[in-house]
Amino acid sequence: MRSPVQNYLESIVEQCSGTEGEVASYIPELAQADPDRFGLALATVDGHVYTVGQAETCFSIQSISKPFTYALALADQGFERVAEKVDVEPSGEAFNEISLASRTGRPPNPMINAGAITAASLVAGDSTDHRFGRVLEWLGGFAGRELELDEKVYTSELTTAHRNRAIAHMLREFDILHDDPEEKLDLYVRQCAVSVNTRDLAIMAATLANGGVQPVTEKRMLEPAYVERVLSVMATCGMYDAAGDWISAVGMPAKSGVSGGIIAVLPGQVGLAVFSPRLDSHGTSARGVQVCERMSSDMDMHLMHVGRMSNTAVRSRYPLSQVSPRRSRPEADQSVLDEHAERAMVYELHGDLLFAGAEHAVRSVVDDAPDVVILDVRKVDDMADVARATLLGLRTMLREVDAAMAVVDPQGVLPDPDAGTEQASPYFDDLDSAVRWCEGEVLRRHGREPTDERTLVNEHPLLRDLSDTAREVVDELMEELHFPADEVVLELGDGFSGVHVIVEGAAIATIQDRSGRTVRLVTMNPGTSFGELALGTNGVQDTTVRTVSDLTVLRLSAEAINKITAEQPQVALEMWRAMARDAYRVAERALRSSATFG
Amino acid sequence: MRSPVQNYLESIVEQCSGTEGEVASYIPELAQADPDRFGLALATVDGHVYTVGQAETCFSIQSISKPFTYALALADQGFERVAEKVDVEPSGEAFNEISLASRTGRPPNPMINAGAITAASLVAGDSTDHRFGRVLEWLGGFAGRELELDEKVYTSELTTAHRNRAIAHMLREFDILHDDPEEKLDLYVRQCAVSVNTRDLAIMAATLANGGVQPVTEKRMLEPAYVERVLSVMATCGMYDAAGDWISAVGMPAKSGVSGGIIAVLPGQVGLAVFSPRLDSHGTSARGVQVCERMSSDMDMHLMHVGRMSNTAVRSRYPLSQVSPRRSRPEADQSVLDEHAERAMVYELHGDLLFAGAEHAVRSVVDDAPDVVILDVRKVDDMADVARATLLGLRTMLREVDAAMAVVDPQGVLPDPDAGTEQASPYFDDLDSAVRWCEGEVLRRHGREPTDERTLVNEHPLLRDLSDTAREVVDELMEELHFPADEVVLELGDGFSGVHVIVEGAAIATIQDRSGRTVRLVTMNPGTSFGELALGTNGVQDTTVRTVSDLTVLRLSAEAINKITAEQPQVALEMWRAMARDAYRVAERALRSSATFG
Repeated sequence: MRSPVQNYLESIVEQCSGTEGEVASYIPELAQADPDRFGLALATVDGHVYTVGQAETCFSIQSISKPFTYALALADQGFERVAEKVDVEPSGEAFNEISLASRTGRPPNPMINAGAITAASLVAGDSTDHRFGRVLEWLGGFAGRELELDEKVYTSELTTAHRNRAIAHMLREFDILHDDPEEKLDLYVRQCAVSVNTRDLAIMAATLANGGVQPVTEKRMLEPAYVERVLSVMATCGMYDAAGDWISAVGMPAKSGVSGGIIAVLPGQVGLAVFSPRLDSHGTSARGVQVCERMSSDMDMHLMHVGRMSNTAVRSRYPLSQVSPRRSRPEADQSVLDEHAERAMVYELHGDLLFAGAEHAVRSVVDDAPDVVILDVRKVDDMADVARATLLGLRTMLREVDAAMAVVDPQGVLPDPDAGTEQASPYFDDLDSAVRWCEGEVLRRHGREPTDERTLVNEHPLLRDLSDTAREVVDELMEELHFPADEVVLELGDGFSGVHVIVEGAAIATIQDRSGRTVRLVTMNPGTSFGELALGTNGVQDTTVRTVSDLTVLRLSAEAINKITAEQPQVALEMWRAMARDAYRVAERALRSSATFG
Repeated sequence: MRSPVQNYLESIVEQCSGTEGEVASYIPELAQADPDRFGLALATVDGHVYTVGQAETCFSIQSISKPFTYALALADQGFERVAEKVDVEPSGEAFNEISLASRTGRPPNPMINAGAITAASLVAGDSTDHRFGRVLEWLGGFAGRELELDEKVYTSELTTAHRNRAIAHMLREFDILHDDPEEKLDLYVRQCAVSVNTRDLAIMAATLANGGVQPVTEKRMLEPAYVERVLSVMATCGMYDAAGDWISAVGMPAKSGVSGGIIAVLPGQVGLAVFSPRLDSHGTSARGVQVCERMSSDMDMHLMHVGRMSNTAVRSRYPLSQVSPRRSRPEADQSVLDEHAERAMVYELHGDLLFAGAEHAVRSVVDDAPDVVILDVRKVDDMADVARATLLGLRTMLREVDAAMAVVDPQGVLPDPDAGTEQASPYFDDLDSAVRWCEGEVLRRHGREPTDERTLVNEHPLLRDLSDTAREVVDELMEELHFPADEVVLELGDGFSGVHVIVEGAAIATIQDRSGRTVRLVTMNPGTSFGELALGTNGVQDTTVRTVSDLTVLRLSAEAINKITAEQPQVALEMWRAMARDAYRVAERALRSSATFG
C-alpha cells in the first residue's frame, strides 16, 4: 500500500510548482543547470527517507557545506578558538557581503562567505589536500556515503572567484587567515564543489535533527553542544538577509545554496532537503522556499510551535491506602496502615521529562508533604539531566524533613548517585515491592515492627477462609519446599504443578510480551502465592518463576488437589470456592489497575 | 518542606553574583536606580511562579514592552498590514540605531526603537489616550493584574527623548508614521514607562510560552500564529546586536530593557524574568545575562535541545492472534481466526504525537500491510493537526487496498471528519469492542458469518466445562432477564447477586479510579459475563454495570449458587472449579495486559 506521508509530500510539491526566479549565473558551470529539475527529501531521525522528484540527481553542495565545515572547525578547535576568529551574529546582509568587524576584522558569522572561508581555515590538517580530505570525509559521514568533488564546478568556480578572493585577502590583512590566503580560498571553493543529491542533504540535516548521531549509520558525528551551536547559527544567519522572514514564516534552522538546494532541521523530528535551481533575489531556491513555507505551516513544523503542556507529567498520584496489595495483612498491621496510609503517597510519572515536567511532579510532592514517597518512573520515556537533578533534589528536601523516598525504576532512568553508600535510596523493579517497603516504613514510623513473615502465610486467602476441618486436611497435604537463589521453580509451558505459597524469600515471574521480549511481571514476597494461574490457561504454566533469594514455599500440589477433589467433596468445595474468590480478587485488582493506569 | 526547584534557583542566583556594568544613565530617572537590586521569577505554563530576591519591586518595563505592543498591532491589524510598515529582519544593530530600509523607510524589525514606535502607531484607537489605554490594558492582561504608568519615568523620558524624537520624525518623512509623529512618540514613551515587577514579567513570558493563553487567568490573549511570530522576532532580534550570541548561548526567545529587566521564553515550558539594573555594553542587564546563560546550560533550556526520539510513538504493535479475548469463541470461528489473525494488527500509540511520531506509526502500518487495523489512541496525550491529517491519510490509503481501520478513542483525540456518513470508520471506546469488530471483519473476509450470538453463551467457560449432569442442574436454575437501554444493572456497593452471562446486547462496567473519577472499565458483549468479580471483594460489587442497548442475560443468582453449594456438593465442586478456572483466566489476561502495557 501507499504511504499517506508520501502522498502528503507529493501533494505539497504539486501545490508549489512555482517557476519564478533564475538559475545562478555567476559561476558558468551552475548557469547550465536545468531550471526545471526538482527534488524533495525528508529524512526521519530513525533514518527513513521519503523522496519526491529527482532526489538522486547530484549537484554541487555550495553554501550548504557551511554549517558542516563550521561544525568540523568546532569539533577540531573547540568553542573558544573558533569564536576568536568568527562571531555568531546575524549580519542582515547578502551571502557575498564583505562584512568584517571594524577593529578586529572578525567576520560576523560562519554562514556568509567571509565567515565560511575562515571556518574552513580552522579545519585541522597539514596541507590543503589533507584538510579537504577531512572535509570530504566529514560531509560523507553526515551523508552516510562516500562523496566526490565535482571537478568541473571546482575549476569553473576557482577561476571566477574574484569576490571571494578579495574577501580572503582582506581576512589575511586582519590576520584572521594565516599563511597563504589563496590556499584557504582553494579549500573553500573545493568544499563548495562537493557533489551531493537531495537525499544526501536530507540525511545530513536529519543528523543535526538527531542531536548529532547519523540516523542510518548510527555513528555520532558531533557532540550535542556543538549541534545546538550550529543550529542556532543556522536559525539566525542561515538564510542571510532573509533570515528573519524565514524564521518567522518557516521556523526551522536552515541553510540554502546557490545551486538551488535548501536544508532545514526540526530538532528531534526531521531533516528536510529541497532542490530547485531557480533562485530568488536573495540567491535562494524560489520553489524551495515555497515548499518549506508550505510544509512548515501545514505540518506544524515551527520551532516555536507549542505542543503539550507539561502538567501531564504526573500520570497519577494516590495514597498507599488505595493500593490493593497482592498479599493480605494481619489485622493489627492493617489498622495502623489504614490510619496513616494517607501520609504515604505514590507518584507515577510518564512521558518525556524536561524541566517543566519534573517541576510539576516535584510541586505535587511539595504540596502534599507526605512522610513516605514512592516515585514510580517506569513509564518515563526520556529524562533530561535537569529533570534528574530536580527529582534528586526532591529527595534531599524530603530527607531534611525526615521523610523517605523510594524509586520504582527497573530501566534505570533515574540512577542513584549515592548507590552503594549509606545515602542510597531504596530502588525497586516493581510497584509491589516498593509498596511492601512503604508499608514497612509506615509501620516502623508508628512504632510497629512488621509482622513476622511466617505468620503471613496464614493470612493467605486460600487458607484463611477454610473451615477448621478443611484447613486441617489442606495443612496435612501441603509440603514445604526449599529452592536456592536464582533457580527456575516453574517454567513457561510446564503443566500445573500446584499452588505455591511463599513462606520466606522472594521470586519473580516473567512473561514474554507481545513482541517476544521477556518482561518482569511481578516480584513475589512472603504471603503471596504462584502457580495457580495455570488453572486459567488449560493447566499450562504461562510465566517463568525464578527465585531471587533462597526461597521457602508451602506447596499444595496438583496431586493433592486432585486427591481432595476425588475423595473429600466437601473440603474440595471449600477449597475451590476459596480459590475462585482469591482468583476473582486478583482479577479485579489487575483489571482495575490496567483500566486506570493501562 | 522546601521545594528543590526553589533551592536550585537560589543556588544559581548565588553563583551569578556579578557586579559588572553600570546603571542606565541616559534617562535621569533610571540613573537613580539602586544598582544592587535583584529579582528572579520563573513562571510555569500552569501558572505557578517561583521567585528569588525582590521580585515584587516595581520598575519601568522599557523595551520589554516591545514584543507585546507588536503582538497587539498584529492582533489589531493582521500580518500583512503590519508587515507593510515594519519588517522582521535582524539588523545586527544597537537598540537606538536609526536604521530604515533605504527606499521604503521601513524599520528592519519591531525590537529596535524605530520598529517599536511604528508598531505602537499601529495599535487601534481614536486618540493617543485611547491607544495607550488599550496598551495598558493589554500589558495588564498578560500580567494578570492592573498596571500603572510611572509618571516620573514618563516625564523624565519624554523630555530627554531626542534620539527617539529624531527617529519618529524620520519615520514620518517616509510616511511610515502618519499624522503627528510627536503623538506616536508620546504613546511609545508612555508604553515604556509602564510599571511592572519581575513576577509580572515572568507571567507575561509564560503567556507566550503557553501558546498565548494567560496561565493564571486562563484567558486567551493572542492567537498561536501571532505567538509564533512574536517569539520568532524575539529570537532573532530581541537582544539587538547580541542576538546571535544570546541564541547560541541561551537559546530562548528573549527581550531586554534598559531599566535592567530581561524576559526569556521556553515554548511549552516556562517564562523567565530577571531584574538587575547594571547594564553591559549592549544596554542589557549584565547579571541578568549571566543568570539566563547559567539556567539555560544547567537546565537544558535551549530551543535546539533535542529531546526524545520520535520512534517511541508506537507503544506496541501486535497481531490480533495475541489478544486474549474476554469471551471464548466457537471452535470453527477460532480456527479461521487463528489462520488469518496475523493479517489483523493492533497499533497502540502514546505520548505527544507531532509529525515525526505520526509518521513513524504510519510507517509501521505501511510496512506490515495488514488487512484490518485497530488504531488504539487511548494513551495519546496530545495530537498535532499534522498527526491527525497523517493518521486520517493512512485510513484513505488502507481503503485503496481494500483494508479496513477501526479506532479506539474514548477521548476523541482523533475525530472522524466523516462521522455520520457512509465513509465513517468504526470508533470504539475500548479495545475489547474493537477486537470484537476486528474478529467479525476477519471472519467476513474469509467467508464466515460470525456465529449467532446466542450460541456464544454455551461457550462461556462457566458452562462449557461442566459435566452433563452439572450443566442440567445449572441450566435449570439460570433465569433469563431483560433490561432496557441505559439502565443500571448492578451498582457499586451492591451485594453479590449472581453471575450474569450476556445473551444479547451490551453493557459497560465503570469504576472510580484512584482520583475518584469515573472510568469506563470495559464494554461487555454476548458471551461475556459480569457480577462474579464481587466474589473476590468480600461479596461487594466493585463496579457499576449499565446497559448500552437492550440487554438479555442469563443469571445464575447468588441464591441459586448457595442452593447448589448446600444441596449438591458434587455439582457445586464442578461449578466452583469452573469459576476458579475462569477467574484465573481473567486474572492472567489482566495481569499480563497491565504488565506489558501498563
